[in-house]
Amino acid sequence: MNKSFIKVSAPATISNVGCGFDVMGFATNIISDEVTIALSNRKGLSIKKISGDGNKLPYNVETNTCTKAILSVLKSLKLNLGLEVTISKKIGFGSGLGSSAASAVAGAFAINELLGRPFTKYELLNFAIEGERIASQATHADNVAPCLFGGFILIRSYNPIDLIELEPPKNLFCTVIHPQIEIKTSEARKILGRTIPLKAGVAQWGNVGALVAGILSKDINLIGRSVQDEVAEPKRAALIPRYYEIKNAALESGANGCNISGSGPAIFAFSKNENTAWQIGKAMKKVIEKEKIKSKIYVSRINKNGPRVIG
Amino acid sequence: MNKSFIKVSAPATISNVGCGFDVMGFATNIISDEVTIALSNRKGLSIKKISGDGNKLPYNVETNTCTKAILSVLKSLKLNLGLEVTISKKIGFGSGLGSSAASAVAGAFAINELLGRPFTKYELLNFAIEGERIASQATHADNVAPCLFGGFILIRSYNPIDLIELEPPKNLFCTVIHPQIEIKTSEARKILGRTIPLKAGVAQWGNVGALVAGILSKDINLIGRSVQDEVAEPKRAALIPRYYEIKNAALESGANGCNISGSGPAIFAFSKNENTAWQIGKAMKKVIEKEKIKSKIYVSRINKNGPRVIG
Repeated sequence: MNKSFIKVSAPATISNVGCGFDVMGFATNIISDEVTIALSNRKGLSIKKISGDGNKLPYNVETNTCTKAILSVLKSLKLNLGLEVTISKKIGFGSGLGSSAASAVAGAFAINELLGRPFTKYELLNFAIEGERIASQATHADNVAPCLFGGFILIRSYNPIDLIELEPPKNLFCTVIHPQIEIKTSEARKILGRTIPLKAGVAQWGNVGALVAGILSKDINLIGRSVQDEVAEPKRAALIPRYYEIKNAALESGANGCNISGSGPAIFAFSKNENTAWQIGKAMKKVIEKEKIKSKIYVSRINKNGPRVIG
Repeated sequence: MNKSFIKVSAPATISNVGCGFDVMGFATNIISDEVTIALSNRKGLSIKKISGDGNKLPYNVETNTCTKAILSVLKSLKLNLGLEVTISKKIGFGSGLGSSAASAVAGAFAINELLGRPFTKYELLNFAIEGERIASQATHADNVAPCLFGGFILIRSYNPIDLIELEPPKNLFCTVIHPQIEIKTSEARKILGRTIPLKAGVAQWGNVGALVAGILSKDINLIGRSVQDEVAEPKRAALIPRYYEIKNAALESGANGCNISGSGPAIFAFSKNENTAWQIGKAMKKVIEKEKIKSKIYVSRINKNGPRVIG
């Protein structure tokens, strides 16, 4: 260890991307969680401060996604260092923007950097998944993987984990609206049920295949046509006031595809240039304002970097 | 019309390709059905002769897939010509190699050529689907589309029809074993049921996305890992004697992925060179011979052409 302190940021991510439920996600530049780890004289791992969470996150290192990921790393190395963690939440809790994944990735990435990189990013993935599992109560990597690797990620298989990085078109812009309401990932999962009609499945994997083809062939029109969801959207739309009206507003403003980000309430829309992307955001905001719900609008290219050391 | 006679061939196709149930298929060079259409003094459309079908196909032009496709073309042009059709079946009936699709495509393609191409290939697709529906009792295009367009085809959507042509790696070889037993497409559909577990769906669309990525990035190892099926294979395997033993023999002989072709009993396996492809075929044949079932072995690159005028 050649440092006594490290500060990292890990970006918000958009998972599912319409059709790719539990298998696709991409990293954005819109906001990032920040995590600091400092060597301490106190024994063991502890959380010094959590900010930006509205006092919702636990200080218990075993039940906090960030420190759980750090603990997983330390445990596998059989290390028991004195460490103090500071977590600055920027990504809204229950926003659908991979908030818990970002904290888990930031934790795993930070401790790995502090220790001089004993693990590759690929090896870090499982530690970050360990942390994120606490929040979502399910093993899925469609936020964690793009947060850690950056870019657009397809998860072919969970056992063994098999990730495919998909190089997106440079001019693919993403608008995000984050209505200031909260949806718990675990609750958004419960409403899905355990089976789907075979017909819906066929439509879903047709779209997943086409979305991958659209990304790899840099065809934003095809990407837009493929951002459809037969599985989660029909059920989760009810959790977001005026969801279909917002989606229509985005599509009428020139969006190439629009859908729920993760389990919502954030909604994303693709477009081909920054100006259109902002117009889409305005149009979406106008709709949600009818419900007297505040919202934040973001525009971003795909983030190709993943987490960064910032101090 | 500048001809009074045309003869065309349309190739055998492999649909599903493991994970892509009802949405993926590719054309092969292994065998082709042949269809001849000749102007006749007799009024209307009639079938002069069908060979190679073991007397199983109907001479009624409304219930024969080939002539049904021809009739659909003629009807849309409001033509009522005197035409005699000769059908030479080379692709085994109920083989899982797109036998009915090839006859339908050959019919639609032949009449279009004879009439001086009033329709584009894209427009012909629906006529061929009309014909094929008679055999499969379901609207699906995962044999018809690759048979008509050649190459590797992904069907994103059926309504409206949205096809994506995927350029496969040049050194992708396909071994096919066709055990000489018959499975009816309509019966192989019935055993699937109407719902699937969400978990199986997630695995399926992860593999479909990865298969598309593997094809477009010319990564045959990734193609091989993605040729998996959570939906049809577990149920249809029971229809093919020693299926899993055949599959294992293929994989142990160097196959990059192996699965049921369409609804079977034909089985396909991918590999990276012709020599390996033949070794795989031998190994598969050895297993099915334990059941005293005769089989044919074929090796082919992906057929990029689709149907051809041969006379």
